[in-house]
Amino acid sequence: MQAFLITFCLSAMDLECASQETVKQGLLARGWPPIKGFSKHVKTKVLEFFSLLIKLGQDDPRRVVHSLKAGLALTLVSLFYYYQPLYKSFGVSAMWAVITVVVVFEFSVGATLGKGVNRGLATLLAGGLAVAAHQLANLSGRIGEPIVLGIFVFLQAAVSTFVRFCPQIKARYDYGLLIFILTFSLISISGFRDDEVLELVHKRLLTVLIGGSTCVIISVLVFPVWAGQDLHNLIASNMEKLGIFLEGFGDEYFKMPEDGESKEDRPFLQGYKSVLDSKTNEDALANFARWEPRHGRFQFRHPWKQYLKIGALTRKCAYRIESLNGHLYADIQAKREIRSKIQETCTTMSMESGKALKELSMAIKTMVKPLAADIHIENSKSSVKNLDTLLKSGLWDDETDLLEVVPVATVASLLIDVVTCTAEIAESVNELATMLKFEVVEPTVSPEKPETGQPKIGIS
Amino acid sequence: MQAFLITFCLSAMDLECASQETVKQGLLARGWPPIKGFSKHVKTKVLEFFSLLIKLGQDDPRRVVHSLKAGLALTLVSLFYYYQPLYKSFGVSAMWAVITVVVVFEFSVGATLGKGVNRGLATLLAGGLAVAAHQLANLSGRIGEPIVLGIFVFLQAAVSTFVRFCPQIKARYDYGLLIFILTFSLISISGFRDDEVLELVHKRLLTVLIGGSTCVIISVLVFPVWAGQDLHNLIASNMEKLGIFLEGFGDEYFKMPEDGESKEDRPFLQGYKSVLDSKTNEDALANFARWEPRHGRFQFRHPWKQYLKIGALTRKCAYRIESLNGHLYADIQAKREIRSKIQETCTTMSMESGKALKELSMAIKTMVKPLAADIHIENSKSSVKNLDTLLKSGLWDDETDLLEVVPVATVASLLIDVVTCTAEIAESVNELATMLKFEVVEPTVSPEKPETGQPKIGIS
Repeated sequence: MQAFLITFCLSAMDLECASQETVKQGLLARGWPPIKGFSKHVKTKVLEFFSLLIKLGQDDPRRVVHSLKAGLALTLVSLFYYYQPLYKSFGVSAMWAVITVVVVFEFSVGATLGKGVNRGLATLLAGGLAVAAHQLANLSGRIGEPIVLGIFVFLQAAVSTFVRFCPQIKARYDYGLLIFILTFSLISISGFRDDEVLELVHKRLLTVLIGGSTCVIISVLVFPVWAGQDLHNLIASNMEKLGIFLEGFGDEYFKMPEDGESKEDRPFLQGYKSVLDSKTNEDALANFARWEPRHGRFQFRHPWKQYLKIGALTRKCAYRIESLNGHLYADIQAKREIRSKIQETCTTMSMESGKALKELSMAIKTMVKPLAADIHIENSKSSVKNLDTLLKSGLWDDETDLLEVVPVATVASLLIDVVTCTAEIAESVNELATMLKFEVVEPTVSPEKPETGQPKIGIS
Repeated sequence: MQAFLITFCLSAMDLECASQETVKQGLLARGWPPIKGFSKHVKTKVLEFFSLLIKLGQDDPRRVVHSLKAGLALTLVSLFYYYQPLYKSFGVSAMWAVITVVVVFEFSVGATLGKGVNRGLATLLAGGLAVAAHQLANLSGRIGEPIVLGIFVFLQAAVSTFVRFCPQIKARYDYGLLIFILTFSLISISGFRDDEVLELVHKRLLTVLIGGSTCVIISVLVFPVWAGQDLHNLIASNMEKLGIFLEGFGDEYFKMPEDGESKEDRPFLQGYKSVLDSKTNEDALANFARWEPRHGRFQFRHPWKQYLKIGALTRKCAYRIESLNGHLYADIQAKREIRSKIQETCTTMSMESGKALKELSMAIKTMVKPLAADIHIENSKSSVKNLDTLLKSGLWDDETDLLEVVPVATVASLLIDVVTCTAEIAESVNELATMLKFEVVEPTVSPEKPETGQPKIGIS
C-alpha cells in the first residue's frame, strides 16, 4: 500500500521517469518517513512544473489568452444562475448552458464552431426523435413503456456507436453523434418520469444554443485563433525546417571534423524531425479549418485539401532527409579526395533545394507567387545534370575503390531524390497559388548566386 | 440558400469529393428539381455508406460487439429512471449516471478505465473544493456572494484550462481537468440557488461512480478489448509489414519487367506505408494501456515504454524503406550487367533482414525469445561484409560508367542502413524479451537457407 501511494504521488507529477524510480526506491528503502527527502523532491517537482507552465505560456502566449477567454465565457453563462429574471425562465436547465461552455470552448475558432454546430444540431435532431419515441412508448401502457423505451435507447446507442467507427464521420461528426446518443437517452428516459417532454427539449435546446453561441462569439471576437491560419503557418514552417537542413547539409557533410568537434552538436540540423510526425496535427487542423468562416485572407471554402497535399509531399521529402541525416553521422565516410570531386555539385544541389523550399515557405506565408523558388529549382536541376556529366566524364581514376564511392554515391542519389521532391512541392505550391490567386511580385533583388557560378535558368 | 442546402446535404455524406462537386454543379445548373437525378445520387450514397459500415464490421467484428456493449450499458443505467425505489433515492440526479455512461464508455478497457478514474477523482476533488468555495462565498452576503463565486469560477477555469496545455498532463489527465472545471462550476454556481450543496455533491458523486463502474464492469467482463494487447499486436504487425516488403524487394528490384508489366501492381509491397504514420496511434494505445490491470500475459506495470521504443525504431526503418521504394519504381535504373553483379548479395541482405523482422514480429506475438531472428541478422550482416569484399575486389571493369553505378550503390547503401536498423530493432526486442522473461524455445526446424548458400553464423 505504501509502495502504491508513493508510486501514485510520483506518477501524478510524471515529469522525469528515471529520477522517479530512484526516489521511489530510496524512499522505500528508508521506510518513508524520513519525509525530508520526499518533501524536497516534491518541492523540486513543483518548481519544475511551474517553470514548464511559464515556458508553455512564453512559447505561445495565445494559450494564456485562451485560458482567460475560457474563464470569461464560463463566468458569463453563470449569470443565468445569479440574475433572477434569467433564472426564473430557465431554472436548473441553466446547467446545460454551463456544461456546453465547458465542453465546447476549444482553442481555435474552427474547433469551437465545429463542436458548437455538432452539439446544436445533434440536440435538435435527438430531441425531436426522443419526443417521437416518448409518444410511441406512451401508447404501450405503464408496464410496456419502459420496455419500449429500453429497446429504443439500446438500438440508437448501438447504431450510433457503430457509425462513430466510420472514419469520414469520426473526423467531422464524432462529437455530434456522442451528443445525439446523450440527448436521445436523457430526453426519452426522462419522459418516463416527466410528461413535460416538449418543455424539456425546448429548454435544453435553448440553453445549449445560448452556451454554444457564447463560446462562438467569444472565440471569434476576442483575439481569435484560426485553425486555418495555424495550418497555413504549419505547412510553411515545415517547409522552412527542411530548407534550413538542406542549406546546412552540404557544408556539414563535406566539412572535415576538426579538433574532436562532434557533428551532432548542430541543433539547427535536427529541426526537420518534427515534420516526420506532423500528419495527425495537419489533419486535425484541416478538419477544424473547414468549419471556419471567411477570415483575413482565408475564404470559407479555402482549398484545405491542397494544404494537406503539400504537407504530404513535404513529409515525403522529410523521409529522404532522414536518410540523408543518417549519412551525416555515419562512421564510414568516403575519402576526402572522392568527396571533394562531387562536393561542389552536391553542395549546390542541397543548397539550391534548401533555398527553393525556404522561398516556397515564404511564398505561402506572404501569399505571393513563388517566382524566386523556380529559379532555385532550375539551379538544383541543372546541378543534377552537372553531376551526371561529372560521373560520366571518367573523372575518377581506375584505382578508385568502389567501396569508397558508395557512401558519396548514396548521398548524391538521395540529394537527387530531394531535388525531385522539392520540384513536386513547388508544383503543388504553384497549384495553390493559382487556386488562391497569389499576388505576382517580381523579385526586386536578384536571387543569390549559387556556389557554382551564375544562376542557370531554364536548362532542364 | 439553395446552394448552401445542396452543399450541406452532400457534405453530410462526404464520401467522394470530386463526384460531389459534379453533382452539385449539375443540380444547380438544372435548378434543382429535377429531383430524380438527386434522389438517385442519394440512393447510391446511402448504399455506399451501408457497404462501408458492413466492411467496418467485417474488418474488426469487435466494433459490432462494442456497439452492443454500449447499448447494454446505457440500457442498464436507465433502470435508475424506470425502477421506482432507485428513482426515489436519486431523482433527476440519475441523469448523471446516464451522462457518465455515454461519455466514459470507450472501445478499450484502458480508455474506459482512464476516463472513469479521471471522472471519478475529478468529481470528488472539484466537489470538495466547490463546497469550500460555497462556504467562503456565503460569508460575503447576498450581494457579495455572486461576485466572490464569479471570481472563483473564473480563476479555476482559467488556471485549469491553461494546465491542460501541458503535454504530460494532457496525455493522461486531460479529461479529468475538463470534468474538474465542469463540476466545480456547476456545484459552486448551483450553491447560490440551492443550499443543499453537500447533498448535491454526494448525489452527483454517487451517480458518477455508479455510471463509471457500470462502464468499467461491462468493459472488463463482456468480451474485453485490451489496449495493451492492441499495442502489442500493432508493434508486431508493423514489423511484419516491413518484413514482407524486404522479403519481396530483392526479387522485385532485380527482376526485369516483362511484357509491359507494371511494377506498381504489387499491393504487398505497399503495406509498409501505414507504418510511417503509426506514432499517434501507438502513443494513444500506450497511454490507455497504462491504465489497464493485469490481464493475460500483461502485467499492470508492463514495460509499455519499451514497446514505444521498438515502434520508433520500426518507423526509422520504415523511412529507409520509403526511400528504397522510390528506387523500385525509378525511371533510371542501372544496367542489367551492373545490377547482376551485386544482385545476389543485395537480395540476401534484403531477404535476411525481412526474415529477421518477421521472426522478431513472431517472437513478440508468441512471447518467445527471438533466437531464429539472430541467425538471420548474422546472415544479413555477413552479406554486408560480402558486399564490401565484392566492391573492393575490383570486379568492375574500367569502362564501367559511374553514372550507372549510382542507383545500384544507393540501393545497396540503403539496404545496409536497413540491416543496421533491423539489428537495432532486434536489440530492443531482446531487451523486451529479457524484461518480460520470454520463453526460450529452440528453433526445431533449421532456418531456411539464404540464397547465397549455407547460413553463416557468427561472422560479425
